Amino acid sequence: MRVLHTADWHLGKTLRGVSLHEDQAHVLDQVFKAVVEEGVEVLLIAGDVYDKASPSEAAMKLYSDFLERVHEQTDAAIVVIAGNHDSGQRLGTASKLFDRRRILVRGPIERDETPLILEDEHGKIAISALPYGEIYSARRAFEAEDIRSPEDVLRAQIEAARARVPDDARWVVVAHAFVTNCQPTETERRLSVGTVETVSAAIFEGANYVALGHLHRPQTAGGNAIRYSGSPLAFGFDEAGTTKSMTVFDLDGQGQVVNLKTVDFEPLRQVREVRGLLEDLVSEAKANPSDDYIRAILLDDGALIEPAAQLRPHYPNILQTLREKKQDLVMSSAGRAQSKLDDPVGVIGEFLTYVRGEGATEREEGVVKGVLDRPVLEDAK
Amino acid sequence: MRVLHTADWHLGKTLRGVSLHEDQAHVLDQVFKAVVEEGVEVLLIAGDVYDKASPSEAAMKLYSDFLERVHEQTDAAIVVIAGNHDSGQRLGTASKLFDRRRILVRGPIERDETPLILEDEHGKIAISALPYGEIYSARRAFEAEDIRSPEDVLRAQIEAARARVPDDARWVVVAHAFVTNCQPTETERRLSVGTVETVSAAIFEGANYVALGHLHRPQTAGGNAIRYSGSPLAFGFDEAGTTKSMTVFDLDGQGQVVNLKTVDFEPLRQVREVRGLLEDLVSEAKANPSDDYIRAILLDDGALIEPAAQLRPHYPNILQTLREKKQDLVMSSAGRAQSKLDDPVGVIGEFLTYVRGEGATEREEGVVKGVLDRPVLEDAK
Repeated sequence: MRVLHTADWHLGKTLRGVSLHEDQAHVLDQVFKAVVEEGVEVLLIAGDVYDKASPSEAAMKLYSDFLERVHEQTDAAIVVIAGNHDSGQRLGTASKLFDRRRILVRGPIERDETPLILEDEHGKIAISALPYGEIYSARRAFEAEDIRSPEDVLRAQIEAARARVPDDARWVVVAHAFVTNCQPTETERRLSVGTVETVSAAIFEGANYVALGHLHRPQTAGGNAIRYSGSPLAFGFDEAGTTKSMTVFDLDGQGQVVNLKTVDFEPLRQVREVRGLLEDLVSEAKANPSDDYIRAILLDDGALIEPAAQLRPHYPNILQTLREKKQDLVMSSAGRAQSKLDDPVGVIGEFLTYVRGEGATEREEGVVKGVLDRPVLEDAK
Repeated sequence: MRVLHTADWHLGKTLRGVSLHEDQAHVLDQVFKAVVEEGVEVLLIAGDVYDKASPSEAAMKLYSDFLERVHEQTDAAIVVIAGNHDSGQRLGTASKLFDRRRILVRGPIERDETPLILEDEHGKIAISALPYGEIYSARRAFEAEDIRSPEDVLRAQIEAARARVPDDARWVVVAHAFVTNCQPTETERRLSVGTVETVSAAIFEGANYVALGHLHRPQTAGGNAIRYSGSPLAFGFDEAGTTKSMTVFDLDGQGQVVNLKTVDFEPLRQVREVRGLLEDLVSEAKANPSDDYIRAILLDDGALIEPAAQLRPHYPNILQTLREKKQDLVMSSAGRAQSKLDDPVGVIGEFLTYVRGEGATEREEGVVKGVLDRPVLEDAK
C-alpha cells in the first residue's frame, strides 16, 4: 500500500502579518499532484491543519476544497488528526458522517479509538488516528486521573488504539507529538521547556509506521518507521533556506516500510535572508527583484534612513530589517552612566554574588564571554 | 416517504445573556426521538443551524453529536442547508466527504445544484438543498450580474436545482427565505424592511414540498406544501406562550403531502410574561417558583426598589423587568421646563412646520394621538 504522509499545514498562518494563503494553496496543489502521480492509496495528515482553533473561512475553504478534490478525483483514503493548533471539536464536527470506508477525521480524543481498516493484496492495514489532546481532556476521555504528561496522554491513546487493531492487520499510527531527541524549529521550541513535553519513541512499539506531526523539519524519530514529514512551508526565518517535503512510501506485505522517499515542495516564494551593506543589498535587489519573503541583515556601521523602504520597491515582501551591531560599536557609545558596561562580566559576577553569595565560576565566565562576543542582531525598522 | 422538517435551531443562542445550551440539547433530543418514533426516512434542517457565523465549540458539539446520533442509530437521510445566521463556508466544510447516499449538507450556494436522490416503493425523490446566500455570492456562483434581490437569488438557485431533478422524480426543496405575506417574529422583522427582502411563493412552482426556514412561527406559505416548521424554541418575549413544533408528513406516490402533522416541542423552560403589582407578583412567585425565562411587567405607580432582585429568589431566570407607565403618570411630573409636553401634538405640529413648512394633517394627528394613548413600556431594572 502506497502512503503519503504530510502534516503541519497551519492553514491561515501569517508571516509577520502577511497572509500565506496563496503560498499554502500552491503547496496543497503539490500534495494533490503527488497523490495522483505517486498513485497514493492513503493520505495521512498528522495535525495542525489550521494555525488556530477558530480558523478563517478562507482557511477552511482551502482545507475543504483540497479534501473534496482528493475524495472526488482520486481513490485515496484520507486520515486527518487534530494537532495542538487545531480545535479538535471544530475539526471533527460531524466527522462520523463521512464515508466510513475511506475517511477518518479525528478531532477530539476518543476512548474507543477505532482504526480505519484498509485492504491491499496482502490483507488488512489498520490506521489509528491519535489527535493531540490536552491532559485534562484525555483524563475525561479515558476516565483516568493518573494521566499527568503528554506521554501519558499518548500512551493511553495508543493502548486504546492497539486493543482495536485486528490480529492479522498491519498497523499505522498517525500522531501529533514531540518525540524525545528530535529537532524542533523556533516555532515549536517556544511551546516546550526541557523534556517535560516530549514523549519517548518507544511507546509506539508494534506500529509498522508512525506518521508524526508537530515538528516542522522533516526527520526520523527512530529509523524510517517513525517520521516527521515536516511542514510544507518554512514559517520563520530560522527555517530560511531549508527544503520542505512530504514523505511517500510503500508498506509491504510484511509491514515493512519500503521505497521511502521525500517529495520536495517548491514554494511560491522562498523565505530567505540577505546580508550585507545596505548599498550593496539595494544594488543586488535592483538587479534581481524578488517577491520572496525576505529578512535583510545590514552590516553598515552608521545611521541609515529607512533601509526597508529602500529595499521594498524591489523586494515587495521584505518582512524584517535587522542591523548586526558589533560589540565594540555598542561600547563606543557608553557614557559615564554606562561605565559599568565596560565590564559586563564583572556586572554579572556582582549579580551572582548578590543572589547566591558567590561570583561566576571560570566555566560560567567562559559562557558569558562566549555570548558577549557574538554579533548582536537588532531591529532597525 | 416519511419526512421530518425542522429549522432555525440557532444553536449557541443566548437570551438576554443567558445561554440556551441546555434548552437546545433538550429539544434536539425531541427531534431525535421523533425521527425514531415516527419512522422518519429523511430529516430536513432548513437553515440557521447556528446563531452566528463562527459558533462556539459547545454549539458545534451539539450539532455534531445530534447528526452523528441520527446517522449511526437510524436509517434516516439528512439534508441541511445554511441559513442567514450560518457561515455557509463553515457549515459546509468538507461536506462532499459525507456519505453521499444519505447526507447532503449545503453550505455555500452551488451553481451545479445537485439534489440528493432517495428512493421509496413509488420511485425517486429528489431533494434540492438551497442555502441562504447573499446577493454578491449568488452573482459569483451563477456569474449573473442581474441578481439584485433575495428573490433573484432564490430563483437562480431553483432554476439550477430544477435542471438536475430527474424527470421521473418527485421534488422536495429545502430553502431559507422570507416568503411574502408570512408572519415574522420580532427577531426576523428586524432584518427586513417592507417587502424588499421577501420572495413570492410562486417561485417554488413544481416542487411537491418546500421545507422553509427563517421565520420562527410554524406556518404555511401556500397550502400545506410550502411550510415553515418554525424554530424549536421561543427566542424572545414576543413569542411568549406560543407552541413550537416540527412538521412530519408523508410524500405519497403521486407527490402529494399527506398525513401532515405538527409534533409539539416541550421546552425545558417556558419563555413567559407575568404582569401585575410587584407585591402580587412576589406572592405568586413564592407560591409557584419557576426556572422559566420570565419578563415581569409591573403595574405599580410609585417608586420600587430593585423589583428584579425581589423576584429572582423564586424566578432564578427572570430576564427583564418593565414598568407599564400610564401617559398621565409621565405628565404629572411635568414642571415649567416641560410645559410644552402638556401638548405633545402641538410640539409635533411645530416640528413638522419647521421641517416641511406645514403642520400635521388631521390623519397624521390621529396617528400621533393613537400612539400617545398607548401604554408605555419602560425598563425598570
